[in-house]
Amino acid sequence: MPSNAPIGVFDSGVGGLTVAREIMRQIPNETIVYFGDTARVPYGSKSKETVITYSRQIVKFLQTKEIKAVVIACNTASAFALETISKEIDIPIIGVVKPGAKIAAQTTKNGNIGIIGTEGTINSGIYNEFLSKTNPNVKVFGKACPLFVPLVEEGLLEDPITYEMAGRYLDELLHYDIDTLVLGCTHYPLIRHTIQKVVGDKITLVNPAYETAKSLKDVLMTNKIESTRERPEHRFFVSDGAEKFKAFANTILPCEVLETKDINIEQY
Amino acid sequence: MPSNAPIGVFDSGVGGLTVAREIMRQIPNETIVYFGDTARVPYGSKSKETVITYSRQIVKFLQTKEIKAVVIACNTASAFALETISKEIDIPIIGVVKPGAKIAAQTTKNGNIGIIGTEGTINSGIYNEFLSKTNPNVKVFGKACPLFVPLVEEGLLEDPITYEMAGRYLDELLHYDIDTLVLGCTHYPLIRHTIQKVVGDKITLVNPAYETAKSLKDVLMTNKIESTRERPEHRFFVSDGAEKFKAFANTILPCEVLETKDINIEQY
Repeated sequence: MPSNAPIGVFDSGVGGLTVAREIMRQIPNETIVYFGDTARVPYGSKSKETVITYSRQIVKFLQTKEIKAVVIACNTASAFALETISKEIDIPIIGVVKPGAKIAAQTTKNGNIGIIGTEGTINSGIYNEFLSKTNPNVKVFGKACPLFVPLVEEGLLEDPITYEMAGRYLDELLHYDIDTLVLGCTHYPLIRHTIQKVVGDKITLVNPAYETAKSLKDVLMTNKIESTRERPEHRFFVSDGAEKFKAFANTILPCEVLETKDINIEQY
Repeated sequence: MPSNAPIGVFDSGVGGLTVAREIMRQIPNETIVYFGDTARVPYGSKSKETVITYSRQIVKFLQTKEIKAVVIACNTASAFALETISKEIDIPIIGVVKPGAKIAAQTTKNGNIGIIGTEGTINSGIYNEFLSKTNPNVKVFGKACPLFVPLVEEGLLEDPITYEMAGRYLDELLHYDIDTLVLGCTHYPLIRHTIQKVVGDKITLVNPAYETAKSLKDVLMTNKIESTRERPEHRFFVSDGAEKFKAFANTILPCEVLETKDINIEQY
């Protein structure tokens, strides 16, 4: 695969743009082909089998764009599908969970780590698994926050309702004396200010996006497939609502999104 | 088609069970084959094309169960797909919008009607269309309430957060002196107590489910295909999470749901 080939990045919807943004910042020569599964969002409450089927279709689609690597920019899909898909393709693939767990293990001082995410991510126990491997002494406390994604999509980022809901979800975690909280869903960095206000300044919020971009950089170096392109032209595809997606993407990405295409993902 | 054949009822998820419940109550001899598209829920924010594609797949699946009629128990799918699908099949098909509009027009005294629903239903303007045909003098005021479906699915039916959110959504409608409010999404009857508290006793809430079951009864009579079955055995299918669906269905249906099957809807 040529080094200047693009990197495929996908998510259930717009959340993965927080990961794409970090990749653009840290490795600006790389070209991104982004796919957001906006027709079938959210993934967080779906079964493992369904999330694997959807992820497989998306990777097949991305491979038609001659990508050199894949980033699963969605915690639920990383939790459920990374292992299976990595056996089915012959290009490098990474998720957001392992990098998130790594940085959380480095951040904690007292060893008590909280994880918030979708039902799928939390119930999979995958953060616990990776964290225990990294450091068997850490204690991990997970909490699913199903309303955060719809609240973000409704644009209630620093709203009293989001604050009240965050209070209810996080109250339990605060009793465990955590000093680190992993934002285990790519939507959550968009409400990090509200979450920080609820948990207070003594708890460090961890956004796996930063570490994921760093991991990707390492993978590209190891495989000697770093891009030398000076002005990469990123491309964006969705399964529904291209215009709505484009407008949202333009509010959070450092580049201008000129076009987003609707594709029929079920045919892959 | 034999008269004792089942009726196909579908929704994006669990909401349509409020319609199935009404059918069971009003025409207890009829057998229901229910499909909930739980893998691809919600429909409310999806495009017309996507909702038509999904509805077509579901009707094809239901037809493998030798149904004699179809009820689209979802306002968004009724708004977007009923017209198209009705041209493609040769059995009777009804939606929830027309019955809902009919009962709203009969209910209002001052001619000011509010409609709440998903973005898809409200932006389609379909309630306005049907209501204007019924009575050109009524004034219709629509409001999309995107967070109601996730709040219902999170079980926050009579919660302060749902009350606060309902207050924000409905405040605008209250300024138009409406005397009738249509619950234009099949999930909303599940939070009708909270909605009634917000709008007060002078506004009548209209639940299209009741009138839809009545319309179905008329259609069956007109076509002389009423069932004579004494103990119908309803069947339930979903595209994901059969056990979770079954548990929810058992809390709201008058019959016991013994089994729910997961099927791959994309193959239809």
